[in-house]
Amino acid sequence: MNQDHNKKTPKVSIKSIERIFTAPENSESTLAKIEQRISENLHGFLQENVAATSESIDQIKDDFVNTKIPDLPCFVSDHADFLLEKVVRRSVNTASPTFVGHMTSAIPYFMLPLSKMMIALNQNLIKIETSKAFTPLERQVIAMIHRLAYDRSESFYQTKTHDPKIALGMFCSGGTLANLGALWIARNKMFAASKDFGGIQQEGLHRALNHYGYEDAAILVSERGHYSFAKSADLLGLGRKNVHKIKTDSNNKIKVDALKFEVERLKRNKIAIIGIVGIAGTTETGNVDPLDKIAEIAKEHKIHFHVDAAWGGPVLFSKKHKYLMNGVQEADSITFDAHKQLYVPMGAGMVVFKDDQYAEAIKQSAKYVIRAGSHDLGKFTVEGSRPGMALLVHSALHIIGKYGFELLMDRGIKKANSFAKIISEQEDFEVITEPETNILTYRYNPKKGQAFDLDEHEKLNELIIAIQKVQRENGKTFVSRTTLKPEAYNFKETIVFRVVLANPLTDNAIFERILKEQREIALQLY
Amino acid sequence: MNQDHNKKTPKVSIKSIERIFTAPENSESTLAKIEQRISENLHGFLQENVAATSESIDQIKDDFVNTKIPDLPCFVSDHADFLLEKVVRRSVNTASPTFVGHMTSAIPYFMLPLSKMMIALNQNLIKIETSKAFTPLERQVIAMIHRLAYDRSESFYQTKTHDPKIALGMFCSGGTLANLGALWIARNKMFAASKDFGGIQQEGLHRALNHYGYEDAAILVSERGHYSFAKSADLLGLGRKNVHKIKTDSNNKIKVDALKFEVERLKRNKIAIIGIVGIAGTTETGNVDPLDKIAEIAKEHKIHFHVDAAWGGPVLFSKKHKYLMNGVQEADSITFDAHKQLYVPMGAGMVVFKDDQYAEAIKQSAKYVIRAGSHDLGKFTVEGSRPGMALLVHSALHIIGKYGFELLMDRGIKKANSFAKIISEQEDFEVITEPETNILTYRYNPKKGQAFDLDEHEKLNELIIAIQKVQRENGKTFVSRTTLKPEAYNFKETIVFRVVLANPLTDNAIFERILKEQREIALQLY
Repeated sequence: MNQDHNKKTPKVSIKSIERIFTAPENSESTLAKIEQRISENLHGFLQENVAATSESIDQIKDDFVNTKIPDLPCFVSDHADFLLEKVVRRSVNTASPTFVGHMTSAIPYFMLPLSKMMIALNQNLIKIETSKAFTPLERQVIAMIHRLAYDRSESFYQTKTHDPKIALGMFCSGGTLANLGALWIARNKMFAASKDFGGIQQEGLHRALNHYGYEDAAILVSERGHYSFAKSADLLGLGRKNVHKIKTDSNNKIKVDALKFEVERLKRNKIAIIGIVGIAGTTETGNVDPLDKIAEIAKEHKIHFHVDAAWGGPVLFSKKHKYLMNGVQEADSITFDAHKQLYVPMGAGMVVFKDDQYAEAIKQSAKYVIRAGSHDLGKFTVEGSRPGMALLVHSALHIIGKYGFELLMDRGIKKANSFAKIISEQEDFEVITEPETNILTYRYNPKKGQAFDLDEHEKLNELIIAIQKVQRENGKTFVSRTTLKPEAYNFKETIVFRVVLANPLTDNAIFERILKEQREIALQLY
Repeated sequence: MNQDHNKKTPKVSIKSIERIFTAPENSESTLAKIEQRISENLHGFLQENVAATSESIDQIKDDFVNTKIPDLPCFVSDHADFLLEKVVRRSVNTASPTFVGHMTSAIPYFMLPLSKMMIALNQNLIKIETSKAFTPLERQVIAMIHRLAYDRSESFYQTKTHDPKIALGMFCSGGTLANLGALWIARNKMFAASKDFGGIQQEGLHRALNHYGYEDAAILVSERGHYSFAKSADLLGLGRKNVHKIKTDSNNKIKVDALKFEVERLKRNKIAIIGIVGIAGTTETGNVDPLDKIAEIAKEHKIHFHVDAAWGGPVLFSKKHKYLMNGVQEADSITFDAHKQLYVPMGAGMVVFKDDQYAEAIKQSAKYVIRAGSHDLGKFTVEGSRPGMALLVHSALHIIGKYGFELLMDRGIKKANSFAKIISEQEDFEVITEPETNILTYRYNPKKGQAFDLDEHEKLNELIIAIQKVQRENGKTFVSRTTLKPEAYNFKETIVFRVVLANPLTDNAIFERILKEQREIALQLY
């Protein structure tokens, strides 16, 4: 128990508390110096302060075990010292060009002062009373992304972008909520109000299924689908089992015939199909489903077609590669993640809707906030209070521009191909999935080219896990890992290194370094 | 159509794109100057640059109508000029001590450089591979808030805080997701796996109700409950109708007898009760439900008891006022919002769980991320990728401290009482709900003290709406408004001004100014 809290409060004066709201950090303070260093040279700051530490979480946690909130305030500079030593130093240098395993990449310099501006303004996008100009700005951003995907007429956007009664999309903190939001809408559209039924939004799933005479409700996505679909199915009351995972071909793309077969089977069994999901850039391999063919099936059966383009959306910027996205404009909803390939800091996702009336299915209001008929964006979102992250997306779209994003995308794909070529030229590494966009997988295999041997395969799986762990703890370079079941290995579980090429500063020399380091670790372990 | 995009890309070189990732803003650039000004004098910057503008959204939107993503990059400084003129100037000065209508308040100075540090690190809390030290830091923050509410033993926290198999709580972007997360867990716990049933997580709500023999499933909360409960009920497949709103007494607290009656009625009708929600700080009036009495009912009927302390949680810091929270330690889950009264920038909410096993009901994993058995926090969250906002909560708890928060809370409540007294002394203003914490409501009424007259009442309702609108557009002071049905006015809808006192710089002189301005507007309009 907290004895001293029963005594009279010592030493904390209202002056000292007011001061933290009124007086800036002295320019000689630790925190001010850290900040200046970040402004002057972000990469230098990260390289100097984020250490390659092999400490495990079990070691690091020892600095985070005090769970009693301290009674007395501590000095800002003391806390800044603590953070520098105990947190910053043991963070991950996600901005490093040698870290090519994450979807979290470097961010442009201008994002830092703009983020500070956004945070200083501390707007809340839920309602115009706490956001004002941020509201039309966010609507513009949503419309820009909508236009990138759907390319409707100028007059469409002139009419729809700022119409408070509708929403061309929904801003949120990331792709998971974007996918959830899309499926929420798809579910509610499917079980709309009718005679003797108030709609699922009012009456719930149980009554909806009974009213419409279904046994159950399902979502269809390929086996490469992001785990957020299972999470969404759980949240929305459908159940994880009702995410039907369709097999993929040797290019990690959904098997269209299998999808068709499953749609027909479910319909025969009176299972409502809430939505079919196409993937534009699978998390593990970066492949894009044949969206046009999925669109045909969805259209034929009048099923909501959602595209998860959280990773691959910006392929649309590339004249050379956007053919991969053919059919995306037929999607009823599309997820984008600005904190991935739009190079915005963590916490910015979006879903855009083909039909501006879709969001009606989830619309809400309250008397003290998001009033009916108002411009308040909170009427159409999963979240409530939200920061003005749209400002950063707006800035990225203007400061990088369409051609800038095209260049970034084209270069990433080119580099992925270049890395794949380097891997295939090694005697002891093999490409597992060739890059279609800017993601590829490979593994270490000193017995490359020899016939498949299950025991050896299992042994290599263990080795890949061990290599990746040591490499991560060395802290110099980073690739991630995942598990695939490639046809070439009789569909056996195969652990692979996964490379994501979004950092514009990654080059061939870095690839060579990564392979060299992995080989050295392998030879020590093998 | 986008003709120029079919031509060869002009003018954008990879050098210029790489530059935005490698070269900081020149210290003479517009953006660098803005940033420096924010660092030196935030309030000065906001006062000079956020203008009191009466422009409507319809006027402002004209600067946000171009929905075509520009082909060519623009200069950072040009874009910064645009933002300063068109966005910052027309934002809302949420930090101003004269703006006392929002739950979005001022933030301490140190939050700005710390936010910049967080954004520069760009960690992703979903998994340790992209967060490392941020993972134990976030777990510590969750445990600190858990301890504030539940005050379990030191050994409890020593054992549980960093155990990767469990979660003492869930971090998220705000209170809506926290409430959703709590009810998700409550629902899944209620319909757990059993013989012949895989659990609602796997099989969905429809099968769950059939298996357990219920007609429907409900959530109980007072009529003052936040709209996020209806939203959650919709999302979770329960339906908005199944949020049963219990009447409140004249102090805006849930009527315990009515709650008891409803619980028994629902049980008789075979309606599963997912959870009872107690409110600790209602959004409109700041009152706290009798949590201890709700806890008794929940315990007797073995129902999940959730407390929404998004606003009022920090009352726990106050020795003088924490009696209001009696019973909160009996809650199964509690929502806190760090971006409200912990003075953290927008985007930080939490829910803590009484039982460390609860989160098992929503646990998830994936092979490429949040691996089973790992320390990855993404196993237990609604969101996927998430920023390191916990760093800012950690800093607030240390730099302000328990006594600092106590002082802030006590002063806010004292000021609310002081304002209520000033209002009651006016001839033409009346308090509608007395402050129990730091929120109060009142209205303009030149016929104060006279008998209730419905026509006059309606006329005043219109007037209050008009006054609030003009006052907001004047941009000098701000109070919000909502609609209540007070007993004193025969339960008729009554439009009221709503005041939220969280800004430590608000004082009596400001209250006098607000009343003076409202009176002047009223006399012009009335």
